[in-house]
Amino acid sequence: MPRRTGAPPDPPARLSLISRHLAPDFALNTPYTVERLPSTIDTALLPKTQTRKMSSQPPHPTLLIPGPIEFDDAVLQSMSHYSESHVGPAFVATFGETLSMLRKLFQTSDLASQPFILSGSGTLGWDLVASNLIEAGEDVLVLGSGYFSDGLADCLKVYGANVTELKAPPGQKPQLPEIEKALSQKRYKAITVTHVDTSTGVLSELKDLSALVHKVSPDTLILVDGVCSVACEEIDFDGWKLDGVVTASQKAIGCPAGLSISMFSGRAMEAFKNRQTPPASYFASMKNWTHIMQNYEAKKPSYFATPSPQLIHALHTALTQILARPLSERFTLHKAASDRIKKAVADLGLKQVAGNPDEQAHGMTAIYLPESVKQTDILPNLAKKNVVFAGGIHKEIATKYIRFGHMGVSVLDPRRGDVERAIQALQDGLAECGYQKA
Amino acid sequence: MPRRTGAPPDPPARLSLISRHLAPDFALNTPYTVERLPSTIDTALLPKTQTRKMSSQPPHPTLLIPGPIEFDDAVLQSMSHYSESHVGPAFVATFGETLSMLRKLFQTSDLASQPFILSGSGTLGWDLVASNLIEAGEDVLVLGSGYFSDGLADCLKVYGANVTELKAPPGQKPQLPEIEKALSQKRYKAITVTHVDTSTGVLSELKDLSALVHKVSPDTLILVDGVCSVACEEIDFDGWKLDGVVTASQKAIGCPAGLSISMFSGRAMEAFKNRQTPPASYFASMKNWTHIMQNYEAKKPSYFATPSPQLIHALHTALTQILARPLSERFTLHKAASDRIKKAVADLGLKQVAGNPDEQAHGMTAIYLPESVKQTDILPNLAKKNVVFAGGIHKEIATKYIRFGHMGVSVLDPRRGDVERAIQALQDGLAECGYQKA
Repeated sequence: MPRRTGAPPDPPARLSLISRHLAPDFALNTPYTVERLPSTIDTALLPKTQTRKMSSQPPHPTLLIPGPIEFDDAVLQSMSHYSESHVGPAFVATFGETLSMLRKLFQTSDLASQPFILSGSGTLGWDLVASNLIEAGEDVLVLGSGYFSDGLADCLKVYGANVTELKAPPGQKPQLPEIEKALSQKRYKAITVTHVDTSTGVLSELKDLSALVHKVSPDTLILVDGVCSVACEEIDFDGWKLDGVVTASQKAIGCPAGLSISMFSGRAMEAFKNRQTPPASYFASMKNWTHIMQNYEAKKPSYFATPSPQLIHALHTALTQILARPLSERFTLHKAASDRIKKAVADLGLKQVAGNPDEQAHGMTAIYLPESVKQTDILPNLAKKNVVFAGGIHKEIATKYIRFGHMGVSVLDPRRGDVERAIQALQDGLAECGYQKA
Repeated sequence: MPRRTGAPPDPPARLSLISRHLAPDFALNTPYTVERLPSTIDTALLPKTQTRKMSSQPPHPTLLIPGPIEFDDAVLQSMSHYSESHVGPAFVATFGETLSMLRKLFQTSDLASQPFILSGSGTLGWDLVASNLIEAGEDVLVLGSGYFSDGLADCLKVYGANVTELKAPPGQKPQLPEIEKALSQKRYKAITVTHVDTSTGVLSELKDLSALVHKVSPDTLILVDGVCSVACEEIDFDGWKLDGVVTASQKAIGCPAGLSISMFSGRAMEAFKNRQTPPASYFASMKNWTHIMQNYEAKKPSYFATPSPQLIHALHTALTQILARPLSERFTLHKAASDRIKKAVADLGLKQVAGNPDEQAHGMTAIYLPESVKQTDILPNLAKKNVVFAGGIHKEIATKYIRFGHMGVSVLDPRRGDVERAIQALQDGLAECGYQKA
């Protein structure tokens, strides 16, 4: 990540850096920080290398799976925030700021857009969509690009949606002409797209897709599974006229797992309000949560179910760090790392599961193994080299490929050397497993 | 909490204590601990006062609301565990041990009992019950003792249950004769009881209730909301023949919020398997989670949705601490603290919302304010004294009372002095608000 050059940090910032070194446990979102770090200080000024030396993280294998990912120290330290009332002014302010920061992350300035943060896995976002925005019997077109699109279709069916799946073979995605054809055959309440299917690393393009939907079927809601894309792939929520993006805390956002994070358009919220039937879930019901989120963002205490203050603090820290730099820079850095990795994979003579270069995610790479190398040999070999990759998960090809996640600090902080170390480990590991490039 | 007297810790235990002091950040569940703390060491031997001196928690107001509660340092430090794969052997072992420890916490040795730990608020446990154990149109008898019984009834209705509510006035609970009468009038699939209604501090007795249900309506499942009771009130899951207890991480268990924790009997799991219709939710579906929990407990990697490794580590630490002492001692200590608090409240001339001494929770006290004292005066007054109580939440009386939570370390570690400080603050605060005992 390019360092800011030119003028050194101003005196208050320098002072805060020193105080951090004296009390490395008290990072962002601790009361000590509130005293020591004025909110105007650019956290990007904090010296990463020194922070790492002071790290509370013991040496451990580098986690390079497509989520959870490696954590920044300050994010992880925020997880140890002392206990607070979930309706006390300090926590309400933190939660409110976190919701407001989500608007910037999703690039929406439309005040009708509504963010949600719920305790839960990313999967809970599917329930949020399926039980609030769709009513039983309504038609939904699901663009199928892998395991996770299948899961979303299953979830929609549980809540009674009439699902039409447009499924592509492993490593591919449905193309615009067939989508246009499907949209012209039936009036769909919504279309869903998995921005990056974590099972295959296939990236779905959103801008042209949305333009097509708005042209062919303008009333159809455009709902995006952004679990493996938010914060590493560009998402222009307003500009692309999206109606919903659901994601999770533990991927490119770089926060520990445990939060379902989402943004819905004013149009989606209207669709919810205009339901003929009550929402089909309780804990994931927008009826229960919408006014709570609005109250939190207005810094008013409010209660439906107890949020996780520690996870919200960690998310607050992660979003503060993300928004301290231009988002475009973040996306560019993810793309650059992805390009390096994909070139290295090609140089090894290996193929990606996502075959088309225009359809390859920038936060992960799914790599077909050579026929002579088993997943059960290479993954433990890499683990011995302190690099943790993931196995395959797409049911048709699960044993034939491995997945390399490259999101967040592993990509943004070049001093870590995570990407280069992983590429080297992959090269060495494959050779040790007997593979030679043909 | 009584200290273990007699022989001092054996040499390995003493060594581990020393090493903890040298590296206070690396507590239970960090790899350093794995190296330094053999699993046979009784964590109760760890010196609380010294741990507190080395605390990573800065000075902060003492949180004495009925959840979240104050955290033990080691539990909070476990929240900062470095990133791990949710399907890697280390985390799978931790998750599996945590599930097994839940069996001990709930006092069930029946292998057919099934524990669940899901990312979510405690409220998600209601969805788990309502969408898996009840089918649309089935009758459920809800014993109403406050705000949270009402919420559970709402949740059951969302998933189609035909709910009969037996509601008591604020501060009371339905009594056995009327419950027997209700059970004899209709065949209920399940009866639900809120063990401690956090809105009123009303404690419901479970043993006699269960005996009654088994006598009068033996096929009826007995489902308990134990959010504010598990780990501070006795729950003999097997002995009392309960079918389900749902709880949350942030109350007497003493872990940060963010986990829905539950235990179901073999009979409940059979009822689930015998459903005529599919489960009515997706993220909370036992169809999706049961084999995952079973695999985790068997130390086999398994995936449906990504759990929160950090929260699971914290829960592991909390349960390790809880189970290091007899559960009966824990309940006795909670009762003793509760008795002290309730006596102090009576000495102040104040009444509890829960009027009947046999129906008063031992982990919280809901206190009616004198007519001359407003909630909006006394709560900020207490906050200035660094004691955080909660306001009322039962809609009929919300502004007329305050809630004092006394669970976990605030009760178990007398060196903290939390209870005495809170009683003193209440006495002083009421006087400063102009109250004099009549």
